[in-house]
Amino acid sequence: MKQSRLHQLRAQDVEHACILISNPVNIRYLSGYSGSNGLLLSTPHNSYLITDTRYAIQSSNECFDVEVVIAKSSLLATVLELVDCDHLIIESEHMSVSTKDSILTVKPDLRLQSSHKLVEKLRVVKDAEEIELISAACAISVAALEQIAAYLRPGISEREIARHLEHTMLEMGADDKAFDSIVATGSNTAIPHHQPSARLVEPGDLIKIDFGAKLSGYHSDCTRMFVAGEPSQWQVELHSIVQQCQEMARGALQSGVFAAKVDSVAREFMKSHGKDHLFTHGLGHGVGLEIHEDPFFSSQPATTIDTNTVVTVEPGAYVPDQGGVRIEDTVVVTQVGYKNLTDFTYDLITIG
Amino acid sequence: MKQSRLHQLRAQDVEHACILISNPVNIRYLSGYSGSNGLLLSTPHNSYLITDTRYAIQSSNECFDVEVVIAKSSLLATVLELVDCDHLIIESEHMSVSTKDSILTVKPDLRLQSSHKLVEKLRVVKDAEEIELISAACAISVAALEQIAAYLRPGISEREIARHLEHTMLEMGADDKAFDSIVATGSNTAIPHHQPSARLVEPGDLIKIDFGAKLSGYHSDCTRMFVAGEPSQWQVELHSIVQQCQEMARGALQSGVFAAKVDSVAREFMKSHGKDHLFTHGLGHGVGLEIHEDPFFSSQPATTIDTNTVVTVEPGAYVPDQGGVRIEDTVVVTQVGYKNLTDFTYDLITIG
Repeated sequence: MKQSRLHQLRAQDVEHACILISNPVNIRYLSGYSGSNGLLLSTPHNSYLITDTRYAIQSSNECFDVEVVIAKSSLLATVLELVDCDHLIIESEHMSVSTKDSILTVKPDLRLQSSHKLVEKLRVVKDAEEIELISAACAISVAALEQIAAYLRPGISEREIARHLEHTMLEMGADDKAFDSIVATGSNTAIPHHQPSARLVEPGDLIKIDFGAKLSGYHSDCTRMFVAGEPSQWQVELHSIVQQCQEMARGALQSGVFAAKVDSVAREFMKSHGKDHLFTHGLGHGVGLEIHEDPFFSSQPATTIDTNTVVTVEPGAYVPDQGGVRIEDTVVVTQVGYKNLTDFTYDLITIG
Repeated sequence: MKQSRLHQLRAQDVEHACILISNPVNIRYLSGYSGSNGLLLSTPHNSYLITDTRYAIQSSNECFDVEVVIAKSSLLATVLELVDCDHLIIESEHMSVSTKDSILTVKPDLRLQSSHKLVEKLRVVKDAEEIELISAACAISVAALEQIAAYLRPGISEREIARHLEHTMLEMGADDKAFDSIVATGSNTAIPHHQPSARLVEPGDLIKIDFGAKLSGYHSDCTRMFVAGEPSQWQVELHSIVQQCQEMARGALQSGVFAAKVDSVAREFMKSHGKDHLFTHGLGHGVGLEIHEDPFFSSQPATTIDTNTVVTVEPGAYVPDQGGVRIEDTVVVTQVGYKNLTDFTYDLITIG
């Protein structure tokens, strides 16, 4: 299955061009190579993974569908020796201005053209193996959530919670955390992307945990809310509105739906409860080899969500200086709806 | 002290230009902002940190010496509204080709010029606060090494060792690991950048551990070697040569020395023992807000190493399919020599 990815790339309207892939995530997708230094060149006749001696063994172990070339000088110089077309497609969203300048210094007649995210577009719809890996990463998240619910109590710090959560995921087989966990307590929950601090959980605090696991390069992403002791009225109400919003947004998912449609379902619901001004970020994003990748729910009116696309659904509402709520799942879109990969109670969970 | 960094930047020959900083590490260095989405614009009259609503509170907490602007549309569009010069200096090593194209679409008459790593150059020599943070990160590494020495034994896997080491550093106050730890056992030690695998430590194995801690954005980097039981003759000999080489390279450090000189001291020593062909990577690199940053010991013949520069010294020798040795310190260069920040025995440590 993986062997066809480079063929799929060349099946895009690339004619007789060479294609230089410089984004490490796209290199991994196309060739399997996960090292930190490498370039991938696809020519009409062959495809090459160019790296340095440090990665000779790793690249030969990991790579499929490409010829591994160990560069004797710089990777870019080696690439330019291998380019046998007068037309080179580059990843202009990833390639630096200085790299482009270097290419044109060596080969001033080379015609450079943007790939317009060719590989990112191929990556949107996942194959069975990718969905399996994301599902496994999500399963680790859910299992870790169950453990963390028993661990949470007044007197522990946001940092301790984050560290315990991340350690639990590693113990459960994750390769890494998917991103720096967001653990916010009390009024810090009003900060959508709060960095865990030394603040201790106090009785009555809301606790927001947004985290994920990484497995073989693939990510999971999940947010749930807890409360230390009996929740107050405003906490229950805010949580209930976000919970209903999240459920409605999930309900709007199905193959072919416009991303903007799903987004508007969520925002209209928040508006009907007078909370739309508190929902200050996007509804969700694709998840795969990157934690944030195409498609994004907002600002892309023409985007549709196709079968086997993996996305997050994560509405939130944040009352400045008081507190906020976010609920988030990672789901895979199906013909008729979606399958939730982070199946865990949506309740505001009382701890301590 | 930090307040002067933007002034230092403008004191470089930038005349009446605006400067757009897009590399997050450089943004953090100049403004204190550590969020994942932001741009920094310095004009002749003012300096701005442009970010989005998610980072409003974080940016106002962290930033010094800049005016925080929360973008209503894209960050780049906001930047271009604030640019009040006809000359914009960009970080061409970091800025993408597509971002540059977007700038010229909006402002076709703007004269763009590369910064030629202006901020990276300012970052090479560390101030007292930076050295304190790197020292603290190194102290965590050394303390974790002591713990891991007691933990190592036959029957545990490379992945378990890496996980235990990283957890230990977090327990000791690190914000994060500095990079994915390299833990290699047996013949895997022949791979300079080996990724920890399920391989179990066996009696007689060499064990190579290359790791570091991250603290307030700053890194440490250290490698030491262990052996499970009595070492064999080749292990003792290879280790002894690398150990002497590392000591000689450290001994060559002092303020103003050419980087290439230190490199040649190490390589000549390896050559005199017939091992230079086994030393397949650079001798070392700068350490600071990035784990690998300027200066690099290799390939920059004119580079000198100045007082208060923090660098690694890490010669290695790798016998394919058999095993390899690397020994690495993070040190700060002084007027007359260096101060070792990862002070830990250089012996081949017997475990198990």
